Amino acid sequence: MEVCTVGGYEEVGKNMTAVKIGEDVFLFDMGLNIPGIVELQEEDLLDYASRAKNEGGQKKEVKRRNTQPTEQKLREFGAIPDDRILDKMGWRDKVRAIFISHAHLDHVGAVPYLINRYPRVPIFGSPFTMKFLETILENERVPFNNPLKTVQPNSNHVIKGKSGSYPVDFIHTTHSTLDCVFLALHTPEGVFFYALDLKFDNHPTMGAPPNYKKMKELGKKKVKVLVMDALYSGTEKKPGSETIARQLVEDSIAKVRGSHGALFITTFSSHIERLNSIVEFGKKTGREIIFLGRSLNKYVSVAMDIKKCPFKNDVKLVKYRKQINSTLGRIEKHRDKYIVVCTGHQAEENSILDRIVGGETPFKFREGDNLIFASSIIPVSINIAAREKMDNKLKRLGVRLQKDVHVHGHGSREDMRDLIRMLKPKHIVPSHGTLQQEIPLVEVASEFGYKFGETSHLSSNGKLLHLD
Amino acid sequence: MEVCTVGGYEEVGKNMTAVKIGEDVFLFDMGLNIPGIVELQEEDLLDYASRAKNEGGQKKEVKRRNTQPTEQKLREFGAIPDDRILDKMGWRDKVRAIFISHAHLDHVGAVPYLINRYPRVPIFGSPFTMKFLETILENERVPFNNPLKTVQPNSNHVIKGKSGSYPVDFIHTTHSTLDCVFLALHTPEGVFFYALDLKFDNHPTMGAPPNYKKMKELGKKKVKVLVMDALYSGTEKKPGSETIARQLVEDSIAKVRGSHGALFITTFSSHIERLNSIVEFGKKTGREIIFLGRSLNKYVSVAMDIKKCPFKNDVKLVKYRKQINSTLGRIEKHRDKYIVVCTGHQAEENSILDRIVGGETPFKFREGDNLIFASSIIPVSINIAAREKMDNKLKRLGVRLQKDVHVHGHGSREDMRDLIRMLKPKHIVPSHGTLQQEIPLVEVASEFGYKFGETSHLSSNGKLLHLD
Amino acid sequence: MEVCTVGGYEEVGKNMTAVKIGEDVFLFDMGLNIPGIVELQEEDLLDYASRAKNEGGQKKEVKRRNTQPTEQKLREFGAIPDDRILDKMGWRDKVRAIFISHAHLDHVGAVPYLINRYPRVPIFGSPFTMKFLETILENERVPFNNPLKTVQPNSNHVIKGKSGSYPVDFIHTTHSTLDCVFLALHTPEGVFFYALDLKFDNHPTMGAPPNYKKMKELGKKKVKVLVMDALYSGTEKKPGSETIARQLVEDSIAKVRGSHGALFITTFSSHIERLNSIVEFGKKTGREIIFLGRSLNKYVSVAMDIKKCPFKNDVKLVKYRKQINSTLGRIEKHRDKYIVVCTGHQAEENSILDRIVGGETPFKFREGDNLIFASSIIPVSINIAAREKMDNKLKRLGVRLQKDVHVHGHGSREDMRDLIRMLKPKHIVPSHGTLQQEIPLVEVASEFGYKFGETSHLSSNGKLLHLD
Amino acid sequence: MEVCTVGGYEEVGKNMTAVKIGEDVFLFDMGLNIPGIVELQEEDLLDYASRAKNEGGQKKEVKRRNTQPTEQKLREFGAIPDDRILDKMGWRDKVRAIFISHAHLDHVGAVPYLINRYPRVPIFGSPFTMKFLETILENERVPFNNPLKTVQPNSNHVIKGKSGSYPVDFIHTTHSTLDCVFLALHTPEGVFFYALDLKFDNHPTMGAPPNYKKMKELGKKKVKVLVMDALYSGTEKKPGSETIARQLVEDSIAKVRGSHGALFITTFSSHIERLNSIVEFGKKTGREIIFLGRSLNKYVSVAMDIKKCPFKNDVKLVKYRKQINSTLGRIEKHRDKYIVVCTGHQAEENSILDRIVGGETPFKFREGDNLIFASSIIPVSINIAAREKMDNKLKRLGVRLQKDVHVHGHGSREDMRDLIRMLKPKHIVPSHGTLQQEIPLVEVASEFGYKFGETSHLSSNGKLLHLD
Repeated sequence: MEVCTVGGYEEVGKNMTAVKIGEDVFLFDMGLNIPGIVELQEEDLLDYASRAKNEGGQKKEVKRRNTQPTEQKLREFGAIPDDRILDKMGWRDKVRAIFISHAHLDHVGAVPYLINRYPRVPIFGSPFTMKFLETILENERVPFNNPLKTVQPNSNHVIKGKSGSYPVDFIHTTHSTLDCVFLALHTPEGVFFYALDLKFDNHPTMGAPPNYKKMKELGKKKVKVLVMDALYSGTEKKPGSETIARQLVEDSIAKVRGSHGALFITTFSSHIERLNSIVEFGKKTGREIIFLGRSLNKYVSVAMDIKKCPFKNDVKLVKYRKQINSTLGRIEKHRDKYIVVCTGHQAEENSILDRIVGGETPFKFREGDNLIFASSIIPVSINIAAREKMDNKLKRLGVRLQKDVHVHGHGSREDMRDLIRMLKPKHIVPSHGTLQQEIPLVEVASEFGYKFGETSHLSSNGKLLHLD
Repeated sequence: MEVCTVGGYEEVGKNMTAVKIGEDVFLFDMGLNIPGIVELQEEDLLDYASRAKNEGGQKKEVKRRNTQPTEQKLREFGAIPDDRILDKMGWRDKVRAIFISHAHLDHVGAVPYLINRYPRVPIFGSPFTMKFLETILENERVPFNNPLKTVQPNSNHVIKGKSGSYPVDFIHTTHSTLDCVFLALHTPEGVFFYALDLKFDNHPTMGAPPNYKKMKELGKKKVKVLVMDALYSGTEKKPGSETIARQLVEDSIAKVRGSHGALFITTFSSHIERLNSIVEFGKKTGREIIFLGRSLNKYVSVAMDIKKCPFKNDVKLVKYRKQINSTLGRIEKHRDKYIVVCTGHQAEENSILDRIVGGETPFKFREGDNLIFASSIIPVSINIAAREKMDNKLKRLGVRLQKDVHVHGHGSREDMRDLIRMLKPKHIVPSHGTLQQEIPLVEVASEFGYKFGETSHLSSNGKLLHLD
Repeated sequence: MEVCTVGGYEEVGKNMTAVKIGEDVFLFDMGLNIPGIVELQEEDLLDYASRAKNEGGQKKEVKRRNTQPTEQKLREFGAIPDDRILDKMGWRDKVRAIFISHAHLDHVGAVPYLINRYPRVPIFGSPFTMKFLETILENERVPFNNPLKTVQPNSNHVIKGKSGSYPVDFIHTTHSTLDCVFLALHTPEGVFFYALDLKFDNHPTMGAPPNYKKMKELGKKKVKVLVMDALYSGTEKKPGSETIARQLVEDSIAKVRGSHGALFITTFSSHIERLNSIVEFGKKTGREIIFLGRSLNKYVSVAMDIKKCPFKNDVKLVKYRKQINSTLGRIEKHRDKYIVVCTGHQAEENSILDRIVGGETPFKFREGDNLIFASSIIPVSINIAAREKMDNKLKRLGVRLQKDVHVHGHGSREDMRDLIRMLKPKHIVPSHGTLQQEIPLVEVASEFGYKFGETSHLSSNGKLLHLD
Repeated sequence: MEVCTVGGYEEVGKNMTAVKIGEDVFLFDMGLNIPGIVELQEEDLLDYASRAKNEGGQKKEVKRRNTQPTEQKLREFGAIPDDRILDKMGWRDKVRAIFISHAHLDHVGAVPYLINRYPRVPIFGSPFTMKFLETILENERVPFNNPLKTVQPNSNHVIKGKSGSYPVDFIHTTHSTLDCVFLALHTPEGVFFYALDLKFDNHPTMGAPPNYKKMKELGKKKVKVLVMDALYSGTEKKPGSETIARQLVEDSIAKVRGSHGALFITTFSSHIERLNSIVEFGKKTGREIIFLGRSLNKYVSVAMDIKKCPFKNDVKLVKYRKQINSTLGRIEKHRDKYIVVCTGHQAEENSILDRIVGGETPFKFREGDNLIFASSIIPVSINIAAREKMDNKLKRLGVRLQKDVHVHGHGSREDMRDLIRMLKPKHIVPSHGTLQQEIPLVEVASEFGYKFGETSHLSSNGKLLHLD
């Protein structure tokens, strides 16, 4: 089996892996890259790309349509996987299918920029993922002729290739958005198993725990290669279930009870489970719940479309800049009547929260207001500095902050051990991180007898692995 | 109000605080000290004291009765609060009552060694605490004439003194053992509030959340002084509820399903909630559950006595050395028939787990066995090194380890903010740590306007604070 | 003895301490505050103050004369010691002398803003310190009537007060600028010893090691109070002598030999010893050495004035913006002919280095150029993020960076132990840091038997200590 | 070129690398392994091996002759490189020469156990290295027929093989013992360069700086492969020259002046430069200098034999247990007459220092005695815990400790950059560490355009690299 580790093997971002069996090639994920950022949402990401080009770094309104990045620019900045390696190896024309694991931009975000290089190749994903992909394709106004194939989690689909037919399992798993799947490609040489992103939550607040039964079944067959999310392979302690985040959300909202100040909650826009918890306990306050911003609106609309948005009648979506401002003006006057949910928890420049704290909107934070961060600081220096500045400003204004109302979405060593135990793969290939983040998984694998350079591997972007 | 911070203000351990109002003095806690260890169980502690005296460090059976430490030895080693300061100030004869917050040895363990210095002074505590105190007094065979007064959590008791009558509230709170209380002493100058150990768990698995209602009520009256557990005042993130530990226990036991190896679980002997979760999910395996060791036996028996041991019919208690060995011999032969719960999670020398791993018992760990640490390593160098050695040995033997199946029992900054908000005390005195561990609470207090040296303080053992 | 710890006891900055003996008060230092920054130079500091007021944070030329901060503004921002406490206590009119320890802005920078509150009170300092003070008073165009008294290190001066006469020793010590002194005020109650900033360098590259002989002599008399720099009291390892920095400078310049690219070296403008090493080894390259910027120019001019600038004939000083630009234009064309020394090592906005890297000057860094950081990153989030951004940009341009060519200027625990051993003071008061940075000195003092709250203390800004 | 990375690629220890050109194989180093220990001396090491076998861990006299480990035992414990891979590949019979880089046991210590597998193959090394090798071969009483070839640093030697003749450069470099060399094997495919252990000291206190001239010359030819010490590749800051350690030694001894207590200094027995500094400043105290213990005696005797022991007439060597005890008895009585230099700085069980502190010798530490650690704690948990225990004991006894009087012997990133710049190798292979310690060198290499998996590599023990 030949595996080309196209992207995501030297960074957190732009995930893409290609597998070749005979004359047939399969692609897994096609994501965007934001250096060092684990989970990123669409709006932030495009802003980032735009800002990166404005070298001066001035703060100005980003005109989206005018700044849409070209493929060339994106490659120059390393923002998309460098799939030209497939041309070089003669693999591009052999691609039979593209599989998307879940709806995060570091897994699906590069599709609009690369899809035309793979004409007519069908793209497969779960309902939430595919609906989200449709949305970003529409937004980017990309013409394309690829069939978009929606597959239910825990179902199977057969892909016909030149050298044979390949059943693919779409295996339900948990992470931090809806409808995440692991992918198992059955080949004559054994199963290629793609486990990005990895987190085993046995107590999710929406949907079922991961489909361990299927994984154990596969483990009894021959799993040849396991490509797996190694991001937290250096961490022993389990991250905790989303149930825990639900409790933390409950407690944090309960503390605000009785306050006559405003209440803002900032979190990840793709995290429907988290948003659901926020709405569930938010409703009990009697305040009206408003979701502010394009990114939130996009993910929530997708969840509604696929009928997986339990809170669809409980929130008001406000999407456009103009509406946002008028809404914020109303909140300024009746601050104890609303809960505002928005993005901006990393204090990203130009995010809604950044603009509010910067005094650029009709709403101004003041003594007695409340802000809950249903997130953690992603530990890169730019975020740490930006949040420190923002938090200090908010504290001086007298805003009550509640931070770290969060559990993150990547499993640690114990989840990796579980997966290895279930699948018993011949080869393990760590992914989804820098080399330093991936190498501890080699150590974990060695506990099970995997030998580095023989059955456990460390790859790099664009490298070809021949795995026997 | 005069507050003498007798012990526990420069270390984690030997907690004791004295308060004088007119001619009446009240004592809060009377604990033992184990340097740097947060939560310690009785057995370990006495072993420690014994070992410390055997300079050679040889591994031998500790003869308990012969090695009972004298008051003088205990003082020399700093193992008990140095309450001779009360003699010096002429306070000792004025002591009207001793209050014990909860049944951990760093709060109650020095009673047997100091009680005779306070003849006839009544000792007050909750049912679990007082029953445990009775047990250790019996074990130590200390003659005494102090009335032992059991008070229900969330009730009130009035102490008569020379200068007046003092109502005391015993306020239910949560920590990591049963029947923990905060103490509120009502005086003409306002309330003295004693909040050791502090952890706010809104989702306990046994009993109710803390009695916030009472705390808020007191906040409306005048709270003069708040002495509070500052151990985790440097940490922002909340430690998580015991519900989380329950989930972790559930998951860890679920993973062992199907194993034909032995299953050992090691945890804190006083942590009845945790033990209850272990039994709850342990029962589902169909294995017989055995609690091994004197310390576990002692706390569980106390819980049974006060009818707060839901699992009393589900476990078998094995207490004495001889029995332990014969039981371990049986387990060796029928390893998939039992779950063994024991102490020794810090790899303490001579603990049961240490002796088993050291090959000193009839049971030997081997390939396929399972060991769950429902605990975390208490981060002092001796534990870190001992556990690393133990873990490596177990891994070489092929034992499957699950670690950190645990949430700890001390609240972080957010809990401290909550308490300050509710009580609005005039003065804050951090306790339960080294000076370096206590000073971050001064920083937290400054967010609310407390000024160091005026309304927030840093004390030391034996210091007298005059608080206006 | 009454000691009022006016400023610098809860932060690194705005150092000021007042001591009262009978009817006579003495002030020690009068510094500016830059939150969390250990060693800061003038230019950066005023820029900072200016920027802080431009809330938008836009990048624009700072007009110095127009933005000079008022006393009120400075107080509001916490930029100067809050000496109004002296009014409150009735101490202000009793001030007999002001002593300045050394020429760093966190020790001397507030003089221009506060001096008029102490009319006719003489100010004492060493030659370098007083000359620097003159310079900043001139720059700020502050009218004043205070006698400026220059005293040689290792000499003695007697101050006449109302309640007596007070000999003061100016004791030579080492730090990271010229002519640093410890101050010993002799009073009837014993010596008040002021040891800011503390670093014992036994192998300085200019001048002598600290005057240990004098310190030991004083130790034989009665030292009542020792106020000391506790900044690195948490660190065991000695920082190393300036000889080490000299070697590092030598090696870093040697590595550039043969390069045809530009060579920039950035360091602290007040660090004459370091500058001397740079010039010494810079000369050997045959390149012309140019010192760029107002701040460097100021300190170097002061060193020249007092005849302690060994390299005065070896460098060209370029001070004003216009000249700087034309000079940079020349360097752009003949990049292998010059060594440029400048500030900006913390990537401070609007510093020369920041403007060069930002492309705002005629000189542009490119492949093959060299930049040596004779400094370390001061570990606050804003600097870490700014430097990471700057360094990445420079690496992309192909500039060869050499970092951490530096030893810092504050002694660690071992220096503190030495001072305590020599002086044997009755009381120790940690200073020059946050409470968390100061508290480890209490631990160090405890090794010598000092007891917290009795003979070792932790103070706060504006607090009055009565020390018997 | 085929490179077999036999040992030292997944740990710090048992270094061994094999290179095959046509029908000729060359071995580089043959070291012992002590898990996780950077620099280790002989005595400690053999003790360790012995102790490891005494599972009970009882403290008893180690009988050396009886406990000599067999090859089989050593392999079982992973204490020697697993060179059986060479048999498997058919390389063993083709070995033409063995090169030893320097006299540390992790580079030379396995020779006595493996030499008989390579009959008649000559062993090459510098004078200090070869003399030391002779000593350990004699001690182990191993019969062998291999020519021992002593080669001067900075000379060249030609090895004749089956497929050609191979000039080898022995290039002088600096580390933390005498006569360290880098090895450059010239082959038709280019140079194989072996750079273990790497530290560039431009200001050594004995001998010359590294031979950069030769390295630059080689860089102009074709260097095909560079195997290099990556141990500190995660560290940016340079470790500092031995001159610095010399200053620290000077200062630490100066502080003891006037003390009437004992003076002990503990350091690495192979570190002749350090010992020289200790003697140089020790002499000034007028005390007699005694070197205690077998390990010190061995290295110092070797230095004397090769005429590189400047202090040979200034110290008294005491080697055997009996003599040691009687000497310590004399010191006990005349404690201010001696300086004792010994090993045991890691508080290793059964080391001299451990035995003294444990009260097992006629000398007992007491109030006023002095102990200087001319070493740092090697950061593994067993050392940290052992030293913490030892230090606490010594402090309680009133011994004045000076710690970290040390700079370590491995260069950081900047040294690695220098070497890469000078040699411009085609391939880089990090060595001398765990995978996690080696991987940052891949990052450093990427700054120069090396691509992971193509021109920079990560190997494992026993792996074969084909490098084109």
